[in-house]
Amino acid sequence: MSLLVIGTLAYDDIETAHDTREGVLGGSATYFAVAASHFVPPRLVGVVGEDFEENDLAQLRTAGVDVTGVEVAKGDTFRWGGRYEPDWNTRHTTFTRLNVLEHFDPKVPQSFRDSKYVFLANAAPVVQLKALEQVEHPEFVMADTMNLWIEIARADLEALLRRIDAIVLNDEEARMLTGESNLIRAASAVLGMGPRLVVLKKGEHGAFMMGSDVHFSLPAYPVQNVVDPTGAGDSFAGGFMGYVSSMSSAEPEVLRKAMLHGTVTASFCVEGFGIGPLASRSQDELAGRYDDLLGIVTV
Amino acid sequence: MSLLVIGTLAYDDIETAHDTREGVLGGSATYFAVAASHFVPPRLVGVVGEDFEENDLAQLRTAGVDVTGVEVAKGDTFRWGGRYEPDWNTRHTTFTRLNVLEHFDPKVPQSFRDSKYVFLANAAPVVQLKALEQVEHPEFVMADTMNLWIEIARADLEALLRRIDAIVLNDEEARMLTGESNLIRAASAVLGMGPRLVVLKKGEHGAFMMGSDVHFSLPAYPVQNVVDPTGAGDSFAGGFMGYVSSMSSAEPEVLRKAMLHGTVTASFCVEGFGIGPLASRSQDELAGRYDDLLGIVTV
Repeated sequence: MSLLVIGTLAYDDIETAHDTREGVLGGSATYFAVAASHFVPPRLVGVVGEDFEENDLAQLRTAGVDVTGVEVAKGDTFRWGGRYEPDWNTRHTTFTRLNVLEHFDPKVPQSFRDSKYVFLANAAPVVQLKALEQVEHPEFVMADTMNLWIEIARADLEALLRRIDAIVLNDEEARMLTGESNLIRAASAVLGMGPRLVVLKKGEHGAFMMGSDVHFSLPAYPVQNVVDPTGAGDSFAGGFMGYVSSMSSAEPEVLRKAMLHGTVTASFCVEGFGIGPLASRSQDELAGRYDDLLGIVTV
Repeated sequence: MSLLVIGTLAYDDIETAHDTREGVLGGSATYFAVAASHFVPPRLVGVVGEDFEENDLAQLRTAGVDVTGVEVAKGDTFRWGGRYEPDWNTRHTTFTRLNVLEHFDPKVPQSFRDSKYVFLANAAPVVQLKALEQVEHPEFVMADTMNLWIEIARADLEALLRRIDAIVLNDEEARMLTGESNLIRAASAVLGMGPRLVVLKKGEHGAFMMGSDVHFSLPAYPVQNVVDPTGAGDSFAGGFMGYVSSMSSAEPEVLRKAMLHGTVTASFCVEGFGIGPLASRSQDELAGRYDDLLGIVTV
């Protein structure tokens, strides 16, 4: 069923301990949409600048992404720079140039407003709410957020949490949002704030989800050669929501499998820079890795 | 089938962010044996000093541990002090008084020498080898080690690795032993050093095992109230080896379930100081938590 993502498209400058890349097509919505495109043709809402390459838009279209909702605004595309420590666990933001994002006012095209599955990628909670209000009868809404909004827009974030079905957080964000250092207690506390499902990501240590009728924990896929972790979280969310949409269900048994699909899409994402490594995967490659992961976790 | 453990008995002084305890009955073999006693009556070889309380030995006997191999030597029992940071991830050793351990020369009683399953708890690799040589026809031998031996007794440790079936390491030890920061690659490298199975513990992030015919990953049990993590690793090994011995098999399907049993015994261990919280659990309590964990990881 129809899947809508609202988020950023970006050009990233990335430094790892082994390599550097400049102007890599990135952004939360980009990674999400490419991951989801392996399951359903996702609808994308975002903004780019006049410098955005037609080629990059074509790449998204080829992947099956409906880019009708990508607005071209005056100015340059959002640009982000990041540097990873050799252990991958620490990321430094080297610069953030909001550019066209600064005045981003999301407009969900008429043809997208009947979307049933919605992912609100990381953005100011007011922007996320504004986007959500334009969707007529969403059935399952998941949002992402970040430390910045927990710090400077907490009230808005709490309002958002009361409006969505699911939130995806990393360990640090969950602790910050709830003041609980134990992640199980943190997840429970998040559930008390509104959503019926929380997905808690722990990077190389996997992820777990908790809700009123589901508690499921999964290790990360054992990737042996990480090249660039940028986009891993959004690729996870894209695989997760892509599968959920394709099944038209957010029942526990679907959500459990969605965790595996998200883990698989994230594992392909980190094996290279940008969306290439993920976009170019075949259905067989995804299925093969899904089966590997299932084998690793089956008792 | 018969399970033998060779390791330490100790009195521990423990400081956590919430509480302190002095003279807690501890030691690697103690925690291991109590965890294993829920599956088979383990045989224990170790040394204590003249100060060792008859009461503590009685506690082990009550749990079903065969203490025939506990030697009483002149001097005081091994004493260890540890302090945990509030996040539990960092442990500081405040003191180590080897006492009777300094001249520990393990003697496996005649009645224990037909043991088929053997756990060599953390000790100098030469001591571990000396103990192993006294077992006639072991079928499955697992060893633990620590950073100290990787640093100061590497050749002995490598000799040990060629003689055992399985090694249990934490993430830091695996990285140190192999020079590989990626844990999957580290585990593969350890397999290249001799054992056919490596169990890699990641604390609150669970554990995975890797061998020629098995690769299995498991999250930790979601304990909400950690009181004292001392002995968690040995309790894990005790539940693991206890189950393997009770099944008289180290086939992949047994090893996978053993990972769950070890995770369950470790989860009870950390809910209090000393062996009490683990020793007092009923079969029903263990089975209940096993089923909980199975529910959390089943796709």
